[in-house]
Amino acid sequence: MKPINLNEKFTKFSKQWHPHQIAIVDDMQVILAKLKGEFVWHSHEHEDELFQVVKGTLYMQFRDRTEIVNEGEIIVVPKGVEHNPITKNDEEVHVLLFEKLSTAHTGNIKHAKTQTHYPKI
Amino acid sequence: MKPINLNEKFTKFSKQWHPHQIAIVDDMQVILAKLKGEFVWHSHEHEDELFQVVKGTLYMQFRDRTEIVNEGEIIVVPKGVEHNPITKNDEEVHVLLFEKLSTAHTGNIKHAKTQTHYPKI
Repeated sequence: MKPINLNEKFTKFSKQWHPHQIAIVDDMQVILAKLKGEFVWHSHEHEDELFQVVKGTLYMQFRDRTEIVNEGEIIVVPKGVEHNPITKNDEEVHVLLFEKLSTAHTGNIKHAKTQTHYPKI
Repeated sequence: MKPINLNEKFTKFSKQWHPHQIAIVDDMQVILAKLKGEFVWHSHEHEDELFQVVKGTLYMQFRDRTEIVNEGEIIVVPKGVEHNPITKNDEEVHVLLFEKLSTAHTGNIKHAKTQTHYPKI
């Protein structure tokens, strides 16, 4: 029940594409991640996934288009929808995600970037 | 699957203590509210509740202390814990809440401020 400062939490890790957990809300978790470059195409069969951009500009690729998500914006990727976040211009983008504790990092696929444990910070 | 701009959404309503829904993530919802003054003591028996301060400074009163939640910070109120948000210095504070769709506005009590419907914006 203590306030959690997002910018302070972002100083606690540097590895890109490695989510860190900052809070749990019922059966969902709040995680932070630093993104740079392209992730991997995947979907989450049973879970929606919310992204909030805290710093920079995120490009959320869907199979039929790309949505630009600016600082101060959120986007919800519905369950079952293939997506692949990417950043541009060599920018490191900071995002907050809100998703079920059961959500797998890369959903239906296994990849070199896949993380199975999100450290608590 | 469109980006949602928080500041733009905050321009769509002016009533204080009237939450508006901007997104659904599985069985949870993202709501925005403008707060000024004191709310009401209540708790949610079965649901945690996340507050993120988007503008201003929120004072989250618990029975044994008050936590100061600044812009860019979040606080999670666990299920069953009595709380009562308040703002100071005549400031209107903008917050994003993340909570179950089943969460009642003032939890276990009924009050003149209680809202039973959160308009979608």
